[in-house]
Amino acid sequence: MKAVAVVSGGMDSVVLAHLIKDGGHDLTMISFDYGQRHRKELGFASLAAQRLKVDHHIVNMQSMIGLISKSALTNDAISVPDGHYAEQTMKQTVVPNRNSIMLNIAAGLAITVGADRLATGVHAGDHYIYPDCRPEFIRSLEEMLKIANEGFIDPDFKIYAPFVDVNKARIAQIGHELNVPWIETWSCYKGEEIHCGACGTCFERREAFRDGGVEDPTIYAATPEYVDPR
Amino acid sequence: MKAVAVVSGGMDSVVLAHLIKDGGHDLTMISFDYGQRHRKELGFASLAAQRLKVDHHIVNMQSMIGLISKSALTNDAISVPDGHYAEQTMKQTVVPNRNSIMLNIAAGLAITVGADRLATGVHAGDHYIYPDCRPEFIRSLEEMLKIANEGFIDPDFKIYAPFVDVNKARIAQIGHELNVPWIETWSCYKGEEIHCGACGTCFERREAFRDGGVEDPTIYAATPEYVDPR
Repeated sequence: MKAVAVVSGGMDSVVLAHLIKDGGHDLTMISFDYGQRHRKELGFASLAAQRLKVDHHIVNMQSMIGLISKSALTNDAISVPDGHYAEQTMKQTVVPNRNSIMLNIAAGLAITVGADRLATGVHAGDHYIYPDCRPEFIRSLEEMLKIANEGFIDPDFKIYAPFVDVNKARIAQIGHELNVPWIETWSCYKGEEIHCGACGTCFERREAFRDGGVEDPTIYAATPEYVDPR
Repeated sequence: MKAVAVVSGGMDSVVLAHLIKDGGHDLTMISFDYGQRHRKELGFASLAAQRLKVDHHIVNMQSMIGLISKSALTNDAISVPDGHYAEQTMKQTVVPNRNSIMLNIAAGLAITVGADRLATGVHAGDHYIYPDCRPEFIRSLEEMLKIANEGFIDPDFKIYAPFVDVNKARIAQIGHELNVPWIETWSCYKGEEIHCGACGTCFERREAFRDGGVEDPTIYAATPEYVDPR
């Protein structure tokens, strides 16, 4: 297959990129600069591209995001909530229609380079808070893209979302088998020098390594115990 | 209804904006700067927003378009083909997945402002060359957006595409009834001082006024006869 993969620089998408290259497939990476407070994640995406020796495109989406900035992810005036990622309070980190926007732009690139796969690292844990990470969204988007680009898109075009029904602990195991250098991936929402260890994505990262039984080489500023409020 | 409309500054989308405001509805306009050789069209979109006294957002998509620039629309190295818009040769003006990308970004804005309609001026004549202007695309996109944004999008959300089965001559008549100031709309692909009169969109514009029986106040550099090559 020839794939265009959306890679943020986090664990899931970096494992995805390794998985595709390890399978001997053609890969082009695309990342999005949507004005997040930290650019750190993007740097880790670039490191993955260099390591895997693949083309990497970074799309600047900041002017767009100014429009839809009711989100803690992009708006400095709103603080990043601590606690578990899957909590309802984390919903404020949702940028409306973000995943669909990124995947649609990536689909344009896929058509241009003649790719037959559009790859995304969405995983089962994302479903709790992001409706645009669910399997039914992936199916609906694939269908829409084929209609929207009939005659231009590869007739066998598919969205490749190998983790859509897989939890993050399993992704940690897959990455371990692929020798993914974890210190060259980034999860923390607060873009400090090291991972904070306390925000939603840091909790999720720590949990994935722990539950997957994979050694976690990440240096965290703090490692508070997570107490389930439910 | 409360609508977010994608307005390019061309005839169709400006008529669309007038139609929505004339119906007494709430309107927010969004335009895209995708590095087209002319910005002229965007200026006409701004004029429409001022005239209709509505909010207008311009999204810069140039960094994105660099990626998918196999198109005459955005790449100065390729000349704009003269002749009728619907010809196969005009296919080179297609930017892969462009309409879906723009409508997905506009959908993000619609969710942010709480709109229940996403309005687009696609019309029947567009179907010949743009698969992402067909009624089946509109239906598929609407479905996908509702799935992607469940819980965030208005439950009655719909795409409003009143011209999807209407030809451009009828749009000229509708605009005439709404007193749309045609000289404040732009069609020509070549961004010169005045409309060239010879490119695909100029042909289409001239034809729309003629077939609709509407007076055409546009000043064209030339008005060559169109000879159907088929």
